[in-house]
Amino acid sequence: MEETARYNNGLIEDKLHEECGIFGILDPNHNRYDLARTAYFGLFALQHRGQESAGIAVSNGEDILIHKNMGLVSEVFDDSILDKLKGIIATGHVRYSTTGSSTLTNAQPLVVRYYKGSMALSHNGNLINANEIRKRLEESGTIFQTTTDSEVIANLIAREREDLVEDAVKNAIKEIRGSYALVIMTSDKLIGVRDPYGLKPLSIGILDDCYVLSSETCAFDTIGADFVRDVKPGEIVVIDKNGLRSHHINKSPGGKNAICAFEYVYFARPDSILEGVSVHISRFKAGKYLARESPADADLVIGVPDSGIVSAMGYSQESGIPYGLGLIKNRYVGRTFISPSKQIREIEVKIKLNAMKPVIEGKRIVMVDDSIVRGTTSGKIVQMLKDAGAKEVHVRVSSPPIIHSCYYGIDTSSRRELIGATHSIKEIRDHINADSLAYLSLDGLIKSIGISAERLCTACFNGVYPIDVSKESNKYLYEKC
Amino acid sequence: MEETARYNNGLIEDKLHEECGIFGILDPNHNRYDLARTAYFGLFALQHRGQESAGIAVSNGEDILIHKNMGLVSEVFDDSILDKLKGIIATGHVRYSTTGSSTLTNAQPLVVRYYKGSMALSHNGNLINANEIRKRLEESGTIFQTTTDSEVIANLIAREREDLVEDAVKNAIKEIRGSYALVIMTSDKLIGVRDPYGLKPLSIGILDDCYVLSSETCAFDTIGADFVRDVKPGEIVVIDKNGLRSHHINKSPGGKNAICAFEYVYFARPDSILEGVSVHISRFKAGKYLARESPADADLVIGVPDSGIVSAMGYSQESGIPYGLGLIKNRYVGRTFISPSKQIREIEVKIKLNAMKPVIEGKRIVMVDDSIVRGTTSGKIVQMLKDAGAKEVHVRVSSPPIIHSCYYGIDTSSRRELIGATHSIKEIRDHINADSLAYLSLDGLIKSIGISAERLCTACFNGVYPIDVSKESNKYLYEKC
Amino acid sequence: MEETARYNNGLIEDKLHEECGIFGILDPNHNRYDLARTAYFGLFALQHRGQESAGIAVSNGEDILIHKNMGLVSEVFDDSILDKLKGIIATGHVRYSTTGSSTLTNAQPLVVRYYKGSMALSHNGNLINANEIRKRLEESGTIFQTTTDSEVIANLIAREREDLVEDAVKNAIKEIRGSYALVIMTSDKLIGVRDPYGLKPLSIGILDDCYVLSSETCAFDTIGADFVRDVKPGEIVVIDKNGLRSHHINKSPGGKNAICAFEYVYFARPDSILEGVSVHISRFKAGKYLARESPADADLVIGVPDSGIVSAMGYSQESGIPYGLGLIKNRYVGRTFISPSKQIREIEVKIKLNAMKPVIEGKRIVMVDDSIVRGTTSGKIVQMLKDAGAKEVHVRVSSPPIIHSCYYGIDTSSRRELIGATHSIKEIRDHINADSLAYLSLDGLIKSIGISAERLCTACFNGVYPIDVSKESNKYLYEKC
Amino acid sequence: MEETARYNNGLIEDKLHEECGIFGILDPNHNRYDLARTAYFGLFALQHRGQESAGIAVSNGEDILIHKNMGLVSEVFDDSILDKLKGIIATGHVRYSTTGSSTLTNAQPLVVRYYKGSMALSHNGNLINANEIRKRLEESGTIFQTTTDSEVIANLIAREREDLVEDAVKNAIKEIRGSYALVIMTSDKLIGVRDPYGLKPLSIGILDDCYVLSSETCAFDTIGADFVRDVKPGEIVVIDKNGLRSHHINKSPGGKNAICAFEYVYFARPDSILEGVSVHISRFKAGKYLARESPADADLVIGVPDSGIVSAMGYSQESGIPYGLGLIKNRYVGRTFISPSKQIREIEVKIKLNAMKPVIEGKRIVMVDDSIVRGTTSGKIVQMLKDAGAKEVHVRVSSPPIIHSCYYGIDTSSRRELIGATHSIKEIRDHINADSLAYLSLDGLIKSIGISAERLCTACFNGVYPIDVSKESNKYLYEKC
Repeated sequence: MEETARYNNGLIEDKLHEECGIFGILDPNHNRYDLARTAYFGLFALQHRGQESAGIAVSNGEDILIHKNMGLVSEVFDDSILDKLKGIIATGHVRYSTTGSSTLTNAQPLVVRYYKGSMALSHNGNLINANEIRKRLEESGTIFQTTTDSEVIANLIAREREDLVEDAVKNAIKEIRGSYALVIMTSDKLIGVRDPYGLKPLSIGILDDCYVLSSETCAFDTIGADFVRDVKPGEIVVIDKNGLRSHHINKSPGGKNAICAFEYVYFARPDSILEGVSVHISRFKAGKYLARESPADADLVIGVPDSGIVSAMGYSQESGIPYGLGLIKNRYVGRTFISPSKQIREIEVKIKLNAMKPVIEGKRIVMVDDSIVRGTTSGKIVQMLKDAGAKEVHVRVSSPPIIHSCYYGIDTSSRRELIGATHSIKEIRDHINADSLAYLSLDGLIKSIGISAERLCTACFNGVYPIDVSKESNKYLYEKC
Repeated sequence: MEETARYNNGLIEDKLHEECGIFGILDPNHNRYDLARTAYFGLFALQHRGQESAGIAVSNGEDILIHKNMGLVSEVFDDSILDKLKGIIATGHVRYSTTGSSTLTNAQPLVVRYYKGSMALSHNGNLINANEIRKRLEESGTIFQTTTDSEVIANLIAREREDLVEDAVKNAIKEIRGSYALVIMTSDKLIGVRDPYGLKPLSIGILDDCYVLSSETCAFDTIGADFVRDVKPGEIVVIDKNGLRSHHINKSPGGKNAICAFEYVYFARPDSILEGVSVHISRFKAGKYLARESPADADLVIGVPDSGIVSAMGYSQESGIPYGLGLIKNRYVGRTFISPSKQIREIEVKIKLNAMKPVIEGKRIVMVDDSIVRGTTSGKIVQMLKDAGAKEVHVRVSSPPIIHSCYYGIDTSSRRELIGATHSIKEIRDHINADSLAYLSLDGLIKSIGISAERLCTACFNGVYPIDVSKESNKYLYEKC
Repeated sequence: MEETARYNNGLIEDKLHEECGIFGILDPNHNRYDLARTAYFGLFALQHRGQESAGIAVSNGEDILIHKNMGLVSEVFDDSILDKLKGIIATGHVRYSTTGSSTLTNAQPLVVRYYKGSMALSHNGNLINANEIRKRLEESGTIFQTTTDSEVIANLIAREREDLVEDAVKNAIKEIRGSYALVIMTSDKLIGVRDPYGLKPLSIGILDDCYVLSSETCAFDTIGADFVRDVKPGEIVVIDKNGLRSHHINKSPGGKNAICAFEYVYFARPDSILEGVSVHISRFKAGKYLARESPADADLVIGVPDSGIVSAMGYSQESGIPYGLGLIKNRYVGRTFISPSKQIREIEVKIKLNAMKPVIEGKRIVMVDDSIVRGTTSGKIVQMLKDAGAKEVHVRVSSPPIIHSCYYGIDTSSRRELIGATHSIKEIRDHINADSLAYLSLDGLIKSIGISAERLCTACFNGVYPIDVSKESNKYLYEKC
Repeated sequence: MEETARYNNGLIEDKLHEECGIFGILDPNHNRYDLARTAYFGLFALQHRGQESAGIAVSNGEDILIHKNMGLVSEVFDDSILDKLKGIIATGHVRYSTTGSSTLTNAQPLVVRYYKGSMALSHNGNLINANEIRKRLEESGTIFQTTTDSEVIANLIAREREDLVEDAVKNAIKEIRGSYALVIMTSDKLIGVRDPYGLKPLSIGILDDCYVLSSETCAFDTIGADFVRDVKPGEIVVIDKNGLRSHHINKSPGGKNAICAFEYVYFARPDSILEGVSVHISRFKAGKYLARESPADADLVIGVPDSGIVSAMGYSQESGIPYGLGLIKNRYVGRTFISPSKQIREIEVKIKLNAMKPVIEGKRIVMVDDSIVRGTTSGKIVQMLKDAGAKEVHVRVSSPPIIHSCYYGIDTSSRRELIGATHSIKEIRDHINADSLAYLSLDGLIKSIGISAERLCTACFNGVYPIDVSKESNKYLYEKC
């Protein structure tokens, strides 16, 4: 329950909070692989989805062993810990950054004992009816030790009376609404679940004869596994020593799908492929569409690292304006424990980014970023470019303004903090002191992803929620993952 | 979930494992006292009851905040942590040493949310029907995240439908059997509970107008509180801003009481007063009775530190044989992380104790210890005394041989390891190479405590269990506390 | 003296070891700035020059306070430590990664007391006659507590009998040969020194009225300081409350200058400007010259992150072959404590880099990297690209082969490990399984930097050492910095 | 250079600071023993002499490896560290508690390289001419990195031009004045040195065929070694694979000896034997002489733990007044990181000690302590006893009042803080609110030790300094050890 106040976000982040990352692997031929280390490197590849806490649980066929703590994967584990985690199934979780008094308690995987044995759950997403279910369970005498949706789901599963755990899972998830990708491990099974809309990604890979589950395909590349296919929306896959079986049972109303569009814009790693679409390619295309929709009379296109880089390259290709490295990111940024005193607040963006004066000086710049949340950082970067001699700075954003809250797992903070929800584009342009400002249209974003609008969740851009969101579902932000 | 392998016990302990210590305080005039620091020093005084983990939870009137970790009280807390634990009620727990993969998970207080709010539980004792209840709860869909009895009790309380939490507690504890002293904290109440036999101690103190609960009275002395009275066997005391109310409802069959006799022999601190009896005085008297029952023709009486010292002084007074400091304990012993290699095993007792050659040499020694568990350490100390020039070593033990398992919270290991259960006194004498060996009689022990036999639990000595112990109640040792 | 075995290099680095970074700042109007925090962020910007240890020393006008430890700047310092480092002058150091038993001892700044008071020294470079001087000093009775050149220099300064410390420094450095940039702090002065050839960079900046010294100009940008000028080769600059004075006294034979060309190729941050030359621009031009010298019939140019990226863009511009993001680097790489077991060795490059299949597939690729040291990593990246569907991989290296050892501070390991020194280009091509391989010519490199050959040290490429290197100067590698 | 503010002393210590402890062992039959672990347990036995820092250096026959850090021996070392310290000679050091910015720098052993190789020095004592020598050395160009006397001594040794290191040591120590026990390790020798007066203890032991050096004999008992003899005042013993040779060359003026009397009163462990005298026996006798000199009309004699216990037993035996355990010490005291807020200051003694009410109540008490430094703690203990019902409290101190500063290594703070130096006995009695107060006479102390007055240093009691102490020798306290 050690807590570390991390000033990181307060100091230099002006981004949406990350998601969570989940991972699982089962070795049908016991102990040929070092599964804990394989899970370690899988989580390492998913680290961008959450830096608050990390955990790995293994089943040795009888018991489940678990190690989790606050911090990065590389901080939480070392050789001596991994050596103790011997098993034939492993599952892991990385959790996004936040602050809160009970953070270690909320770290996952959540390991519980129930009438059929032990079970480890890892969840990415956000249940919009978690509070209702929690209240109902509490009224029937259930206690809760965490504020995670995983504990709600674990209770639902434990209350089922099916012979097979997969049937219990099947019944349990009928009660939950919202976004979820789940990896559940019992002593002898690994189960992957995606919500009926497929709001959160989950893919299946194979490493020799070991099936692997991962939030993103980039983890398969890291551990040397081959991509098999995505878990389908509403599907339950059950992996044991006999292989993988599918239970595709949980359809959304009208069979509607809705993978989160923001995964393509910001969350996912560019080398991942979600629903058959390369995140990198979608970002590149977003830059191209942005150039078509909102050209600029400029000399150089630059991207804001890391996620604006690819779209900037697309913008450059489409516009014919040369692409250049105008901003350099300090590759050691990521963690600083220094408090944001006044003197430091002034230089906070400079700690992270530096403008390349020889590249920028005297030029009219197109600066491409993936999104604008509060606007503070964007304004500082524009200023940095002007200080470096930019004659003009034309900001182009490779996604539409975020004007609605997300109930499915993205921490968009309160609507009041979203500058896109409270200010006109002209006001934002003035606020960040850009010479011009344009966002990609929703249509442009959808085309760049290449998935039809009906199969994408774009609620944060247009307020069209795939699932009916009741008012009481507004949970505390720290409960999301 | 950080784990530290501690070789301490393996290396130099040959004692029964410690108990747990529990503590609580409520300030009716909010925030006059720094309750977290007061709880810190209370736990500091109870540290001898458990060195595995420590935790403090506070209620600020709405929420419960918790900090707990593996280690000593002084290792788990520092100023910055205590500064964050602001509240009007505080409760804390120290847990005995053991090893195990899930130790942090089992640290207490256990904080849970249930339909009436939040609750923090701290438990000292051992439920003999915990497995039955756990099984029954699991079959009705309950999940468990720890292996503690506290979680079982929390579930029972949460399932009650009473308006008042004290009524829920009242109902819940009707279902549990075994030994328990409980401190339960809600957002506005502090509740103390003792099992119907009063097997585990729990006392009430007062610090200005703040009521205090503590496993032992020594914590009252440390924080400057005054002793009020013991919680009575079967009593529930409810403390809130209006004061203390008693619910004395849970009588044992026939109103029989049975405080653990071993608290007087070894567990409790000598400066504590349990059931009106000074632990120090009872140990001193045990030494006197031991001298009467088993005199020795000797020149010097010495005690094995720390708990044998007082009985040795009693033996000396009764026998007229002078008392001397024959064994010195290294006051920095307590924690070593060095593995017990062969070379070190040979010197392990010497790391902890040293014989005072100038005191011992040429003398016939009476060596008084409080108990003999496996016999290994006793044998090494006898040898150490002989190496220091003792002509004879007459071992006198200030309690009877332990020949039965304890089901109420003492880790007497398996019966097979109890040398008293498997060997005759003559065999033990040979094993430890003493010139003579005698134990205090059970009658002598009872007289030295001064509480009638019917009101003491002496099951580990004579197999008379106050509560019927079924075979299936034999739980894993690590679940005890 | 805590040591942590870091498998980082063994696992995923195949690069030349980093240099050291040095920093200093003096506030003539006492205490207006928080100098320790300013030094912290200065070192943060120089972190790429060394990740082994970090240290900051401050002078409060009388005493020198120091804090240093193993680890990254963000790991070594926190608020409470910086709060204690109050002063009117601050100096800091980051040291490159290596292993060794006495690493903390060697951390800098080195603080010593001598007959004129206290002094803190930070050094970047390598003295080729350190062993001779050390031997001479030892023979006159001097003791050494570290294996750093800084301690040798401190002894030389302390033996001078000049009234002014700058005169002592002036005399002392006449005895040393090799590369050195020094920042020396006394209780009231900050002194910057560069060796007569200017092999190592050191620049002067100004933050309001505080003079700043830094290995690279990127630190000025981070803390908001303005670049003033470089310290000149052979110059001593003395900063105190009265401002900056120059002592330009130590000319190289024939006035020859020789800044290390490898600073431009790899060591320096791209946003730094050394000797008036933008590192970024030089790398971009290196790519262009490389394209001219060694064209390739290909579809896409990609760079190996991070340092190959810019040259790849230059190659693309010159060749007209499109530039693409073909390799993605895990931005959390940098530290892993997991041992390189066999299974992991196979995936080690994949942990760090991933090939963008949608970008690569079916294409003939030009892969630009800044250098090839042992060849292992290059071979694995080529294979990764081919596995991702590259039809051909043409490797282009933006510097000439390294065929000679560096005596001035670069850890080129033993000559035997330099694949460029022991294999022909054809053999290397076969070893890394590239379809073609070409290095930038030395002439091309010199032109890309834009500094005349006589003013650059290119010894590692052509064996022309600016300073005569005697055989006995070959020191242990860990002594370099 | 990690620093931890420890409030321990401020909170609960009112004692003279501890000394340092030094240890060495050489194995002539290489690697039969695990010398690092043996040194670990040797230091463990000497832990009472210093809790600030601990260090062990080993020679593997060529190089010297060192590990040292702030903290207790058990905190500084673990198995993995000890596993790396393989060698044929080992030496270690524990240093007393203090605060200061450069504490790790001052940790010992000090390892230096000089013209004859490497050398590790450990020192207990205080040189009164260290500043003069340091100044002289600095004027000849020497730099200092620590504020320890060890560094002064190392420099003196390194400046000698003898063939044999023992001859260099012999010459070097002719220059130093003050108290010193030294253990010096080179690659193949272990050297023990005691100052001409023998102010600090150093003994020789043997473990099979390994010679051992230790500040106190208790370390021999712990590691299973046999006591051989003390190093004589002025003697240098040289141990190598051929055995032990003595160089007894450095006589004090008139051959006067002067072992520190306070070692017997407080510093040494009771199970140690210094100059043939059992510390335990001397303390017991001090109690007896105290009873003879200053009887009291009382019912019970109690001792203040730990060091007052034995004298109390002696007082009891002589006076015939029964001895009892009136004060219990919390055995977990020793380290707390909680700041001494007002509320806590009031209970600070209670955290450490508790009065045994059933023992004390209604009785007239003789309370025996070894010394009174500032008087604060004594006053609080008297009050605690009265609160527990003592009718009278007669304080008896088993040593004379401390009225003079110690220049040889005891931190008696400034003379102004010594209540014995500034107040009459009657004033002190009033200050601590005792019913009577008496100190042991100097004659009584000398008789209790049993060494003639001419062979003891009693300067802190009577101002008779064996070595002439010039005014300028008054060094900063933190330099002592």
